[in-house]
Amino acid sequence: MKHSGIWKMLRAAVCLALLSCLQAQEFQGHVSIILLGATGDLAKKYLWQGLFQLYLDEAGKGHSFSFHGAALTAPQQGQELMAKALESLSCPKDMAPGHCAELKGQFLQLSQYRQLKTAEDYQTLSKDIETQVQQEGLWEAGRIFYFSVPPFAYADIARNINSSCRPGPGAWLRVVFEKPFGHDHLSAQQLASELGSFFQEEEMYRVDHYLGKQAVAQILSFRDQNRKALDGLWNRHHVERVEIIMKETVDAEGRTSFYEEYGVIRDTLQNHLTEILTLVAMELPYDISSSAAVLQHKLQTFQALRGLQKSSAVLGQYQAYREQVRRELQRPDSFHSLTPTFAGVLVHVDNLRWEGVPFILMSGKALDERVGYIRILFKNRAYCTQSERHWASEQNRCLPQQIIFYIGHGELGHPAILVSRNLFKPSLPTQSWKEVQDRPGLHLFGRPLSDYYAYSPVRERDAYSTLLAHIFHGRKESFITTENLLASWIFWTPLLGSLANEVPRLYPGGVESDHLLDFEFSGGQLFFSQQPLELLIPGPELAPRPSDFQVLRAQYRESPLISAWPEELISKLANDIEATAVQAVRLFGKFHLALSGGSSPIALFQQLATGHYSFPWAHTHLWLVDERCVPLSDPESNFQGLQAHLLQHIRVPYYNIHPMPVHLHQRLCAEEDQGAQTYASEISALVANSSFDLVLLGMGIDGHTASLFPQSPTGLDGEQLVVLTQSPSRPHQRMSLSLPLINRAKKVAVLVMGKIKREITMLVSRVGHEPKKWPISGVLPLSGQLVWYMDYEAFLG
Amino acid sequence: MKHSGIWKMLRAAVCLALLSCLQAQEFQGHVSIILLGATGDLAKKYLWQGLFQLYLDEAGKGHSFSFHGAALTAPQQGQELMAKALESLSCPKDMAPGHCAELKGQFLQLSQYRQLKTAEDYQTLSKDIETQVQQEGLWEAGRIFYFSVPPFAYADIARNINSSCRPGPGAWLRVVFEKPFGHDHLSAQQLASELGSFFQEEEMYRVDHYLGKQAVAQILSFRDQNRKALDGLWNRHHVERVEIIMKETVDAEGRTSFYEEYGVIRDTLQNHLTEILTLVAMELPYDISSSAAVLQHKLQTFQALRGLQKSSAVLGQYQAYREQVRRELQRPDSFHSLTPTFAGVLVHVDNLRWEGVPFILMSGKALDERVGYIRILFKNRAYCTQSERHWASEQNRCLPQQIIFYIGHGELGHPAILVSRNLFKPSLPTQSWKEVQDRPGLHLFGRPLSDYYAYSPVRERDAYSTLLAHIFHGRKESFITTENLLASWIFWTPLLGSLANEVPRLYPGGVESDHLLDFEFSGGQLFFSQQPLELLIPGPELAPRPSDFQVLRAQYRESPLISAWPEELISKLANDIEATAVQAVRLFGKFHLALSGGSSPIALFQQLATGHYSFPWAHTHLWLVDERCVPLSDPESNFQGLQAHLLQHIRVPYYNIHPMPVHLHQRLCAEEDQGAQTYASEISALVANSSFDLVLLGMGIDGHTASLFPQSPTGLDGEQLVVLTQSPSRPHQRMSLSLPLINRAKKVAVLVMGKIKREITMLVSRVGHEPKKWPISGVLPLSGQLVWYMDYEAFLG
Repeated sequence: MKHSGIWKMLRAAVCLALLSCLQAQEFQGHVSIILLGATGDLAKKYLWQGLFQLYLDEAGKGHSFSFHGAALTAPQQGQELMAKALESLSCPKDMAPGHCAELKGQFLQLSQYRQLKTAEDYQTLSKDIETQVQQEGLWEAGRIFYFSVPPFAYADIARNINSSCRPGPGAWLRVVFEKPFGHDHLSAQQLASELGSFFQEEEMYRVDHYLGKQAVAQILSFRDQNRKALDGLWNRHHVERVEIIMKETVDAEGRTSFYEEYGVIRDTLQNHLTEILTLVAMELPYDISSSAAVLQHKLQTFQALRGLQKSSAVLGQYQAYREQVRRELQRPDSFHSLTPTFAGVLVHVDNLRWEGVPFILMSGKALDERVGYIRILFKNRAYCTQSERHWASEQNRCLPQQIIFYIGHGELGHPAILVSRNLFKPSLPTQSWKEVQDRPGLHLFGRPLSDYYAYSPVRERDAYSTLLAHIFHGRKESFITTENLLASWIFWTPLLGSLANEVPRLYPGGVESDHLLDFEFSGGQLFFSQQPLELLIPGPELAPRPSDFQVLRAQYRESPLISAWPEELISKLANDIEATAVQAVRLFGKFHLALSGGSSPIALFQQLATGHYSFPWAHTHLWLVDERCVPLSDPESNFQGLQAHLLQHIRVPYYNIHPMPVHLHQRLCAEEDQGAQTYASEISALVANSSFDLVLLGMGIDGHTASLFPQSPTGLDGEQLVVLTQSPSRPHQRMSLSLPLINRAKKVAVLVMGKIKREITMLVSRVGHEPKKWPISGVLPLSGQLVWYMDYEAFLG
Repeated sequence: MKHSGIWKMLRAAVCLALLSCLQAQEFQGHVSIILLGATGDLAKKYLWQGLFQLYLDEAGKGHSFSFHGAALTAPQQGQELMAKALESLSCPKDMAPGHCAELKGQFLQLSQYRQLKTAEDYQTLSKDIETQVQQEGLWEAGRIFYFSVPPFAYADIARNINSSCRPGPGAWLRVVFEKPFGHDHLSAQQLASELGSFFQEEEMYRVDHYLGKQAVAQILSFRDQNRKALDGLWNRHHVERVEIIMKETVDAEGRTSFYEEYGVIRDTLQNHLTEILTLVAMELPYDISSSAAVLQHKLQTFQALRGLQKSSAVLGQYQAYREQVRRELQRPDSFHSLTPTFAGVLVHVDNLRWEGVPFILMSGKALDERVGYIRILFKNRAYCTQSERHWASEQNRCLPQQIIFYIGHGELGHPAILVSRNLFKPSLPTQSWKEVQDRPGLHLFGRPLSDYYAYSPVRERDAYSTLLAHIFHGRKESFITTENLLASWIFWTPLLGSLANEVPRLYPGGVESDHLLDFEFSGGQLFFSQQPLELLIPGPELAPRPSDFQVLRAQYRESPLISAWPEELISKLANDIEATAVQAVRLFGKFHLALSGGSSPIALFQQLATGHYSFPWAHTHLWLVDERCVPLSDPESNFQGLQAHLLQHIRVPYYNIHPMPVHLHQRLCAEEDQGAQTYASEISALVANSSFDLVLLGMGIDGHTASLFPQSPTGLDGEQLVVLTQSPSRPHQRMSLSLPLINRAKKVAVLVMGKIKREITMLVSRVGHEPKKWPISGVLPLSGQLVWYMDYEAFLG
């Protein structure tokens, strides 16, 4: 359908009127904005209003505009729908009604509906724009295509724009996408590379509308403008925790077809909350107006995020959800959904600034209130001498000290930035932020509002208005680049995988949920504070718990055997090692411990690192039982396991740590470098009689122990204390303590865990002293004690 | 004076009466208790009442008693004074008045005054006791001498007791002392060794009456009885801080002659608060009723205390104190006292259980309230999903979680143990502790009383009664052994020394002090939260502050020179190093930094460890510029300085740390071990072109740099990268990078600080390239950059 004649005339008149305004300053070119999905929900609710706001802000500043609402709908019907959507456009409150009507009239005249379905439709659109620009004597600055359509439609539209609807040379193209940007790392990558085949990175604007919320958009500026006060505070020494919270009262009713596929983590944590996290945690660029610097620092923050475990998250699902899904998606009564509608996640940023500071991300539907905020709580490092009765909030350093970016809603009801008065008086741009009037009786985050320096925007502005302005001005730092998007998916995808079969905790919703969703963290793990009241899906019969069984004491190869479930076994072994250590330090002033590599000891290392506060580490010497001939920093190195799981958590003096010298003169285990002899003489020099206080061994399924394999020509007997050996598996070259040296130890503990060991355990129980065939059978301390630690699976099968 | 006839008869009658009681159980022997200083303040106020309580508790349980009040006063007068003191003895509230009068009568009959002045007096006392025991057909169990006299009188009395007043074989002697036990470590040691020449350690009972206060005496039992709940909580992972507080409203008026000499730290912190600290922090013995185990664990805790710095404490003095001293000690109007009447001290226990947990000790006179407590505040590790309006205290894990041992007084008014209800329900012995009734409106430590499980003693008992019972039963764990005492003085004496000339902050006293005495801690330092309002003694003219000056940029030996006050200089150097590091990592993936030893770099290490959160440590390799030929763990080792001040605070992978191999094959710098060659080839292998990214040097007053000394035959030229050298000062043997290697660096920074360097700085500014004479003059990077960093004292003198 062609434009009506009248419409054309009106347009020309408006353009002339505009041009006369533009005479005041140089003409900047014509901008066409094409809103794809112009009659959809998002468009009706936010985007048309945002475009109108853009027009209000920019008209008369040098550009001319045309607005094209587009959809698949036939022209007539589409035009009607669009007209309806445009009816409700509103002006700022302080604008005179007459002026408003005039501007709205202009905007409507610049806006037209257009069906975009076929390649020809796009060609026509492009031609029409060119024609119009020519006819009106303008030149083209650029085109914005806003994809307010489902992702499955992206590729076709993108192809059409790229092939038929790019502006001519010298004018820019900007394409705007709305989430979801994929479902996991792989799908996000596919979508990104597909879009990347049509558009340049700088042409793409991925919207995360939270970045347009006023309190969020202010985070970096706030950090920048208050650098002096924050410089010493914004780090692990002062920050107790960071909470990034998005609570909703609405549920997923009416949207379950989308929600069933995504769930709360994909819906809000992977994008909104993660983006906010990077704004809080990033190293502040010198120039925060540099998009490139901001994006680079964001990416560095992603690099520093510690990988998430299954235990980093707690999940919930509001009770009515399942029924809603059944109804909306026509699922049978037996249907159960595992989709979480609530999640709390504990994130750690492993760099020097944030190490150890918990970042708590939480989002959920059907909660007791609608509110979003970012709360930075500082450590209390003061002691107040006076009785509490005499505390004055402004001076008192014992009251909570916090900074809150209040996104909106909640008890306050509007965006705000709050800084505790006992912290510092913040600096904010006075033209856009004003002090909030006190509201007696209103408590926020444990304190009355009057305890804060509180600021709110002079004019509240919708996120989409802000973002449309940023798109128009090409401010890319408010949008998600491809690198940024993929970094976020790389971070979240493993967690989503490991949680896929997790049963979320059911909650009634609203205030009824009570303390059911409160959660706590300890040692990097997150868990609900309350025991579960109800299970969504009754699980399989519970496996027997470790505490249901006693530790079993028996004999194995005529030596004591301790057997238990893994957790108890490790705990018992750790206790025994500590007791041995304490006694050795009391008697001799030091404790010489030789440790094996492999996976079983890792649980032991973790137990020792976190559960044994009185272990005499300062007087403990750590030796290796065996080592692979790889550089110490190689992930395959036994030493690397020791470093990652034990050394970095405790304080052993550097010179008490004795890695095996497998890497000398830049060679690995070269005979002529005499690494084995060097280690042997280090042992002889430091360990009395070369008799370790405790040697921890394992046992391989071929009966090897340490790195002494069946038929080894070295290490099974003879004088050598430390030997080079060959392993049947890679890396073949090894260094190992010899059997004669091991047998000089005061105590030898052999740790055997897992079903896979069952067969060798049975076999070795029956063989005699045959170290050539089964090296483990040669372990028999001359005057020391041998103890076997086996879990039930290894011992009982 | 002899006993009157009537008194003798009465005595015999009472003894008979007692004996008849004793027939019920085996006779345990006669105990004589001699109270030295029987008419003094302490005796009148507490000790006689304590002895009476002991009599009430023990009479009829197998022992017979006699109580001897002793003093220097002549018999008649002494007897009168003592009789007066005994008049006010009271029975427990629930005892019938008649029964009370009867028991009081018995006690008075068993008590007599005795002048003890000369050696003969003591001999007579001993004979009298023996005679009495014989006459009454008893046998002697033991004697208790309670020294309620000033310390200067100890030696004479002790000598007399030891030589003339010990009980016969088979009976025990117990001597009881009251603080002060010395004025510092030396005087305490002298006093202890003097007493040790008269008494065995097991005979001596040093009283710290705080150990007899009910809430304090319960600490270990509480930890023992609640092991299961506390096991996981009582450590650095869960405890936020520990406060050990003793606030008094009284001032020192009337006691200034004592107080002037001691001050608040010696008066209360060195003893009461420190003893409490050990009870809270010690590893809990398996059997807490074993005195030996408790004392051993206490001593281990002292071992773990981090040494105090001047900056670990804040001091105050109430305003009226000076005037009181002038008046009482007749000092001139110009007199100023530096004696603190208020102190806050930050203590750290450096073991795995407590590392990083602040222990705040605070005590003061003339404060706003009288109260004593120990407060263990736990970390908040919960996120509560509901709005605060819906929080219930018992379930809510976001409200404070704390355990308080309330010693007494304060708003509660009696001893108590409080445990937050959201923590756990504690177990307490129900026969001696009862639940406290709620008192609506009473808030303690930020929460209403109803938020706590609160217990108070069923019967309040004075500390001295408790301790006298413990002495009687030989329970030594409630007393201060010599080892314990000296360990405490070893801890406190250096602080007392460093604070000796510190001007305490003046405070008005009472509630008027407002927030003036509030203090905060950061990085191990303690400081008042508010800027001082008034100075007691106006200090000397303030020296110019670093920020008053600009950093000076100039030239020195034709290379850039940066000069500033020390703090700014170190800060500038640290920033420059970080910038170099960041750039190197960006370009090459790693940063090779070679560091010198000595004292100047320590400030730099501290600055790097605490102020540079984005330093790329994970990609930094640390090398040594030079090393002394001592074991790495020797305090003289340069590496040891690096370890203590930098490595233990940051995370550098083990294998990126490159100490010099000065200790090979258990020898120090033996030529044949080729340590220098080994280090050289390590450098060649890892550092591209053996060109360090940055070498940090110093300059000695003889013009040496690294360990390259004037006239050195090695290292000043030639091919060798690393050399062994000789220093004129001990330890003579050194290993050092050579000048040719240093000059291959991309950047060389020379840090020179302190007035002592002024002369050599002047001299070196004028000499040419004469490395044989002035090794520093040979530093001239071939293609790298040389920058001098000198503080004003080194550069301007």
